[in-house]
Amino acid sequence: MDEFDAIARLFMPLARGAGGAYDLKDDAAFLKNADGAGYVVTTDTIIENVHFRRADPMETVGRKLVRTNLSDLIAKAALPKFAFLNLSWPHDRSQAELAAFAAGLGDDLGNLCGNTILLGGDTTALDGPMVASLTLIGVPVGSRPVLRRGASPGDILCVTGEIGSSFVGLAQLDGSLTPVLDTELSAIYQVPQPPPLDFAPLVGRFAKASLDVSDGLIADARHLALVSGVEAVIDLDLVPLHRAVAAWRDSHIDPLAATLACATGGDDYQTLMAVRPGEVGALISAAADLGVRVTRLGVCRAGASVQCRWQGARVDVPATGGWRHQVG
Amino acid sequence: MDEFDAIARLFMPLARGAGGAYDLKDDAAFLKNADGAGYVVTTDTIIENVHFRRADPMETVGRKLVRTNLSDLIAKAALPKFAFLNLSWPHDRSQAELAAFAAGLGDDLGNLCGNTILLGGDTTALDGPMVASLTLIGVPVGSRPVLRRGASPGDILCVTGEIGSSFVGLAQLDGSLTPVLDTELSAIYQVPQPPPLDFAPLVGRFAKASLDVSDGLIADARHLALVSGVEAVIDLDLVPLHRAVAAWRDSHIDPLAATLACATGGDDYQTLMAVRPGEVGALISAAADLGVRVTRLGVCRAGASVQCRWQGARVDVPATGGWRHQVG
Repeated sequence: MDEFDAIARLFMPLARGAGGAYDLKDDAAFLKNADGAGYVVTTDTIIENVHFRRADPMETVGRKLVRTNLSDLIAKAALPKFAFLNLSWPHDRSQAELAAFAAGLGDDLGNLCGNTILLGGDTTALDGPMVASLTLIGVPVGSRPVLRRGASPGDILCVTGEIGSSFVGLAQLDGSLTPVLDTELSAIYQVPQPPPLDFAPLVGRFAKASLDVSDGLIADARHLALVSGVEAVIDLDLVPLHRAVAAWRDSHIDPLAATLACATGGDDYQTLMAVRPGEVGALISAAADLGVRVTRLGVCRAGASVQCRWQGARVDVPATGGWRHQVG
Repeated sequence: MDEFDAIARLFMPLARGAGGAYDLKDDAAFLKNADGAGYVVTTDTIIENVHFRRADPMETVGRKLVRTNLSDLIAKAALPKFAFLNLSWPHDRSQAELAAFAAGLGDDLGNLCGNTILLGGDTTALDGPMVASLTLIGVPVGSRPVLRRGASPGDILCVTGEIGSSFVGLAQLDGSLTPVLDTELSAIYQVPQPPPLDFAPLVGRFAKASLDVSDGLIADARHLALVSGVEAVIDLDLVPLHRAVAAWRDSHIDPLAATLACATGGDDYQTLMAVRPGEVGALISAAADLGVRVTRLGVCRAGASVQCRWQGARVDVPATGGWRHQVG
């Protein structure tokens, strides 16, 4: 049983059909207040040896924890305001490491998240891997968050930034990809680069459906497609890559395999959006004004699945299309 | 460095002096909405081999996770409405155990927490001990939560339920206390018995300051005393004990030591309150109508510390007076 099955079968009933829970199938929940306004709440856990390496500098782990959550809020067109931290800290790590973790976390909550306030949390110690959960409570830039559902046939799929840098960066750190293409890629694995706060209003203005790319581009496109009730068609040759990754792909014996590795690697923390065809140009232009690259990736068609193409021809994609947490 | 030092030095600055964070020194935070209403938010983590035993039935672990959080809300005079679950599930545990955990969690969120809705969360898998965090979002029964601060000299200290049952119950399970006094005590360790939802309005009506007893009665009395700026004086011979624990104490070679073990053992999840002297009788009577035992424990005096007495004579108490998580 994997994460998604477990959630669907065991935990979804506990949402009791509440509107803002979206059957636990979205990246965030909407907590509607009596006055009609509301909060967008997201929470993500990162675990040593799963989401980061034991050797990663603790200051980068603090930043990664913030950014994995921030990318969810940006993709929902929401801005973070408050945070709660649940930190389970290994006995064998030092005070200096704890201070470095707090420094990275604090700097990103401050500078990247518009002075988001740490309102509470729980600090515990354990014999085992470090486990840290952050809950971000934000406010939607409009009246409500942008959801995974909402895409229609004809919509264009667009994504921010670059895909696969983190996957390649991890392979470099682990020594499974040699020679090293560019040390910047490993830095991106350790400190993801989600779109900035001021991109959230563009998500609200242009995206009919949206989510952050964390499990893998193809897997997350499938999530959007299944919940929206469309077929997401991705042109893999359009997937935006870091220049070093693009050069690696182009010199690879199998450029399609290299691209698929990037599109299923996960850990990207970019925003994938479905946009009306006539508005894509305006989105790309408005994003460019913020220094954010937005790339047209494919289209939505009638159906309920994901399909990939390479140089116009259909390509079989892995069944899951991304990394899935195995549970139980 | 222990948990409290770490929070004070490293994380308190990240609260940016926000009113509802209470300098991260309370059991819950207050998230005030634009319309003046607000949410009371609490979050607690439980870890295998720290807060529960590996052999404990998973259905009880699900319940314990809910109850450790619920007791915080009750003590703040708030009622739970929404929950978020961060579950890090060991690879070596079975699907049946996961289903049992979800069943216990779900039953308590439903029946004990007034159909609290699971709004979201994150499920991950790990090689290591199970780690589970629950965040409860509640609403205060009055206009704001009851805090740790607010006690004045002359106030009476009262506590709900019984103290030390969980400590003795764990000792029974671990075989460090033989013969077994009463199997009910181990059941209380596994499934704590906080006051029910309908006790929250009594906290709001009668308590000037309040918190849940989780670190240990003496340690938590010290928390209330230091934040309120009073000296908490506890008459240890008044500490309410389960009948089996009281019999054990009375037959113990050192009844004071047995009582101190209960008053420092922690894991009680009862509510400790400071109440005006003239209102204690009304509180005890109103609580009795709900089937909740409330016991007068001691008084608040001028000062900023905790003092214990045994049969009227002053007793030296352990420096910490409870179990403190060691961090770093």
